[in-house]
Amino acid sequence: MKIGIVGGTGREGRGLAVRWAKAGHDVFIGSRQAEKGSAKAAELSQTFGVTVHGGDNVAACEHAELIVVTVPYSAHGSTFESIKHAVGNKTIVDITVPLQPPKVRSVNLPEGQSAALEASALLNEGARLVAALHHISSEHLSDPEHSFDCDVLVCGDDQIARAQVISLVSDLGLRGVDAGVLKNSIALESLTPVLLHINRHYKSVGSGIRITGIPETE
Amino acid sequence: MKIGIVGGTGREGRGLAVRWAKAGHDVFIGSRQAEKGSAKAAELSQTFGVTVHGGDNVAACEHAELIVVTVPYSAHGSTFESIKHAVGNKTIVDITVPLQPPKVRSVNLPEGQSAALEASALLNEGARLVAALHHISSEHLSDPEHSFDCDVLVCGDDQIARAQVISLVSDLGLRGVDAGVLKNSIALESLTPVLLHINRHYKSVGSGIRITGIPETE
Repeated sequence: MKIGIVGGTGREGRGLAVRWAKAGHDVFIGSRQAEKGSAKAAELSQTFGVTVHGGDNVAACEHAELIVVTVPYSAHGSTFESIKHAVGNKTIVDITVPLQPPKVRSVNLPEGQSAALEASALLNEGARLVAALHHISSEHLSDPEHSFDCDVLVCGDDQIARAQVISLVSDLGLRGVDAGVLKNSIALESLTPVLLHINRHYKSVGSGIRITGIPETE
Repeated sequence: MKIGIVGGTGREGRGLAVRWAKAGHDVFIGSRQAEKGSAKAAELSQTFGVTVHGGDNVAACEHAELIVVTVPYSAHGSTFESIKHAVGNKTIVDITVPLQPPKVRSVNLPEGQSAALEASALLNEGARLVAALHHISSEHLSDPEHSFDCDVLVCGDDQIARAQVISLVSDLGLRGVDAGVLKNSIALESLTPVLLHINRHYKSVGSGIRITGIPETE
């Protein structure tokens, strides 16, 4: 699948790009500046022996069948504004958590209740927005060899888009779990500050969550 | 420890009362009507061979060193109003989830952002409010023999009260995990609709969560 990663030059983008490229996907890293996206793509291709493309964020969206947005919350609204015309009816995955530094271990509800609901309000109606991947430590994700002990909760109003993302998540070496409608992004995003508190309280590098009581595979 | 269970005649109350009584605690079941509380206490005492006391909700608070409130969200505000003068400086555990029937599989943020934050606003300043036990299926809890595969996230602004509740949770046969400040009740309460969605989607009776990446015991 052709995957475009908007804001893909950060730690999360690096981990996602390398893992998906190794799984056989065609990955394009986007950045606000085309040169930064291209440079990061070249670096990752050389370091990990994969082929990753790069350019600006709009090119990443146009190239892609599925778009992933990984930006800090401070750049969230402006990023969605800048790409909305390039998204069309594609599936777009928002992994943003609305943290409010320095109080990152306390839930911060944004004005629109969740970052994903805010993104949804900005996009054209046809776009199929999915929220996921809020609980994977960027440290673990950026290490292509790390083996995860964490599930990925996936929510969105389009069930087919959720299933598509759950399948892509398994190509990262993670189990995706269907978490229902996009409004449930409130729960998913707000769990991240709790995990950050747990990391500090229990001196853990990357605590995570597992869903129990469901069949191992669908 | 002397534990008072406000609204204790329901399924959650039954499970909590029997499990704590079996662990050696002195349990008092409260109800809006004293006779209902007494009758339920007598029934549980006889059925399970334990000693449980009962009466009205205010008596449950006065009797207790630690208070647990287990009422549906529709009765949440009026219940806290009715007991607030009897709470004093005691630790009080709110296990309410603000579900909005019939849409119980979609997050519903109440006006005060979480039920626990609303309760906190109603109580006197000295009361030490803790939110916990949102993710244990009442069906599993009400069966005193059921062995859980679920952690209990415990949040509140008083760290000593959190530790006290984590210890009581272990007497239920569950692992408590410190989840930080009371504002994190937004995350804890809003995860319940997600688990209710997961139950339906995966045809599970009681899905739960486990926190990974932390030491097995404190």
